[in-house]
Amino acid sequence: MRKFTADIGEEDFGKEVELYGWVHEVRDLGGLVFIVLRDREGFAQITLPKKVVDRELFKRARKIRRESVIRVVGEVKPEEKAPNGFEIIPREIEVLNEADAPLPLEVTEKVPAELDTRLDNRFMDLRKPRVQAIFRIRHVAIQAIREYFDRHGFIEVHTPKIVSTATEGGTELFPITYFEREAFLNQSPQLYKQTLMAAGFERVLEIGPIFRAEEHNTIRHLNEAVSVDIEVSFTDHEGVMRYLEELVKEVYEKINERCERYLEWLNLKLEVPETPFERLKYDEAVEIARKKGEEIVWGDDLSTAALKLIAEDYSGYYFIVDWPTESKPFYAMPYEEEPEISKTFDLMKGWLEIASGAQRIHQYDLLVRRISEQGLAPESFGFYLQAFRYGMPPHAGWGMGLDRLMMAILGLQNIREAVLFPRDRQRLVP
Amino acid sequence: MRKFTADIGEEDFGKEVELYGWVHEVRDLGGLVFIVLRDREGFAQITLPKKVVDRELFKRARKIRRESVIRVVGEVKPEEKAPNGFEIIPREIEVLNEADAPLPLEVTEKVPAELDTRLDNRFMDLRKPRVQAIFRIRHVAIQAIREYFDRHGFIEVHTPKIVSTATEGGTELFPITYFEREAFLNQSPQLYKQTLMAAGFERVLEIGPIFRAEEHNTIRHLNEAVSVDIEVSFTDHEGVMRYLEELVKEVYEKINERCERYLEWLNLKLEVPETPFERLKYDEAVEIARKKGEEIVWGDDLSTAALKLIAEDYSGYYFIVDWPTESKPFYAMPYEEEPEISKTFDLMKGWLEIASGAQRIHQYDLLVRRISEQGLAPESFGFYLQAFRYGMPPHAGWGMGLDRLMMAILGLQNIREAVLFPRDRQRLVP
Repeated sequence: MRKFTADIGEEDFGKEVELYGWVHEVRDLGGLVFIVLRDREGFAQITLPKKVVDRELFKRARKIRRESVIRVVGEVKPEEKAPNGFEIIPREIEVLNEADAPLPLEVTEKVPAELDTRLDNRFMDLRKPRVQAIFRIRHVAIQAIREYFDRHGFIEVHTPKIVSTATEGGTELFPITYFEREAFLNQSPQLYKQTLMAAGFERVLEIGPIFRAEEHNTIRHLNEAVSVDIEVSFTDHEGVMRYLEELVKEVYEKINERCERYLEWLNLKLEVPETPFERLKYDEAVEIARKKGEEIVWGDDLSTAALKLIAEDYSGYYFIVDWPTESKPFYAMPYEEEPEISKTFDLMKGWLEIASGAQRIHQYDLLVRRISEQGLAPESFGFYLQAFRYGMPPHAGWGMGLDRLMMAILGLQNIREAVLFPRDRQRLVP
Repeated sequence: MRKFTADIGEEDFGKEVELYGWVHEVRDLGGLVFIVLRDREGFAQITLPKKVVDRELFKRARKIRRESVIRVVGEVKPEEKAPNGFEIIPREIEVLNEADAPLPLEVTEKVPAELDTRLDNRFMDLRKPRVQAIFRIRHVAIQAIREYFDRHGFIEVHTPKIVSTATEGGTELFPITYFEREAFLNQSPQLYKQTLMAAGFERVLEIGPIFRAEEHNTIRHLNEAVSVDIEVSFTDHEGVMRYLEELVKEVYEKINERCERYLEWLNLKLEVPETPFERLKYDEAVEIARKKGEEIVWGDDLSTAALKLIAEDYSGYYFIVDWPTESKPFYAMPYEEEPEISKTFDLMKGWLEIASGAQRIHQYDLLVRRISEQGLAPESFGFYLQAFRYGMPPHAGWGMGLDRLMMAILGLQNIREAVLFPRDRQRLVP
């Protein structure tokens, strides 16, 4: 019976199992050969005592190259010194695909490799349990996100990635040649998810790629990222902030429940953050950074330097709220009584921005004015503006970087570690 | 208490509820005004008898323009003649956003509109219960797909959409300007999901956009589509065909379980298809079409005309299997004993292709040869080929068009009806 290594337990002692995996190590002690088989879930020790196993099998086994793909059929025996307390005495070892030598990258991690080398050989790098664990936990994070929003009546949607209009003006767009016309890769589903509010969907979720032609190369930016986007009608910024903090907490809880093994591979213990997250006003954040010597012009975005100073006091999850209206996109709703600040928020973990959201403007006239004030042309937002004229409900929403969230949860030093095949200015392959 | 219209029942009679929605209709009978409120889940009749409700409220209510967004607070009363057997006597009606008049498209469907007009005004078109229903059912189809693959140990992944290599040669690619270089939008996650087999993921699922610069304009092609892709190690084409037929069946079952209301809006009853689906060999399919007068060169793909003839005999779900090797992409595994045919399959519903898959070649030398034989340059598949040299397991997989599946399930006449904001050669907006 085919099993994953991690599924073998005492109930299998004395029985025959079938394993598929990679040759992690071969140790040849003369009269005894050990093969460590690695599969998606862990390791198994295949033990070949010369006097016990088939002579032909023994001869072949000692010569199998590392990282070859094998199928093993054999009996499970208790063995205290082996990983997970068992070993397999093989009746059969079939080499399904032999690996070349030397290997372009070591899976055993005896020699640490640079991130660039790792990414160049990502298919080998991903075989390391420590790296594999990141994507198993990411999978559970995605599960948790979907479960949360299913429970809250959200509709999952797919909006187009090829678009004719820039979401937030013409910056940071990748142009594409679309038959005879110029088009762009979408920077965010913003305009579409708002349009779906006019269409009466009321609560939508999209998890999909976004594209930003940012030129800077940092540890937290990529040119292609995965964004978790929601939009909700008949609520305000506070309403969607509550969804966000509850969601983050639940992602932690489900990872703890479902990823024990993978957290162990990463040697990580996750502490579930407490909700509600603290709300720090933009003005207060500015004050903190200024007191520590950073010069900030009121109305500007907060620089990385400023955020790092603020993070000295706020190391966990917190919101920075009530941003200057001019620092946020045109669709952010200004406070009625104080229109220079807006019903906006960023979710932070320390100095890392995880998500950004707002109550949106739902009034046509105000929206047109705000587009103009930001130096954009209302004419280029035709279909979007049209949706505000015939019954657009009040609404709010946010976009969260999934890769950023994984960085924050797992304490990764570089966003590239949270992405299978990252895209930056230099990297287009693999 | 805030409720959706569909959640109001006998238990609410005599109680006050809060509803949010759109003004579907206003009927003014002089001493009595009816407002039909529409929300995501259905309709509610708001009844204003002049003698009962507040005078000011009555005056305002009769003038509210259709498709305006309103909030209603009022008492629920049984009323046999109203939809769902109740009416609301309002204490308060707040207009949250007034709609302009005339409307660009009717939501009441009293006048049928052309598809192009509907898509131009998609935010209005989507308000129609019959259109809304398609996307509610699509949501449940996505849920069902994820639940199925979660249960079978699949890992959900996101692979890059900006790539340097064409998946299946240089045709049908959208070029993009990626900083100083040329890059492309990915036609399919094929090369990446195979790479993840070399990385030991064993079973992966991706649901994401694919991009094809096909010039033809048909009722079943789009230039941007959503693809459901799986790849599985240590199995063959038969193994992944079983996943596919089981999955399709389960999608039907879950739609029937969870979408009663939306199927009703579409006036549709779904019959769950029986599994296993029939396997029709390519040679047999050719024979059927030839007998009906269609000329087919052995080795060619099957034309729409041929498929329509075959569909006269096969109207439900079935597989066409064992395609000529030359008719399929280079990564399809030829049969060992008969290499001119391959371990490939298409899932069909009548004449509509829903999915396409194969056991893949996992041997480096054979793969290089097949790339060359198809007139492509192995050098341009650098990172992909590298993954085959150091322990690539045997594997198989398929890609399914989610939009096509929805067309098949709901009997839609045009794929554009299954997509929120479709992209074709002419349509880039909205």
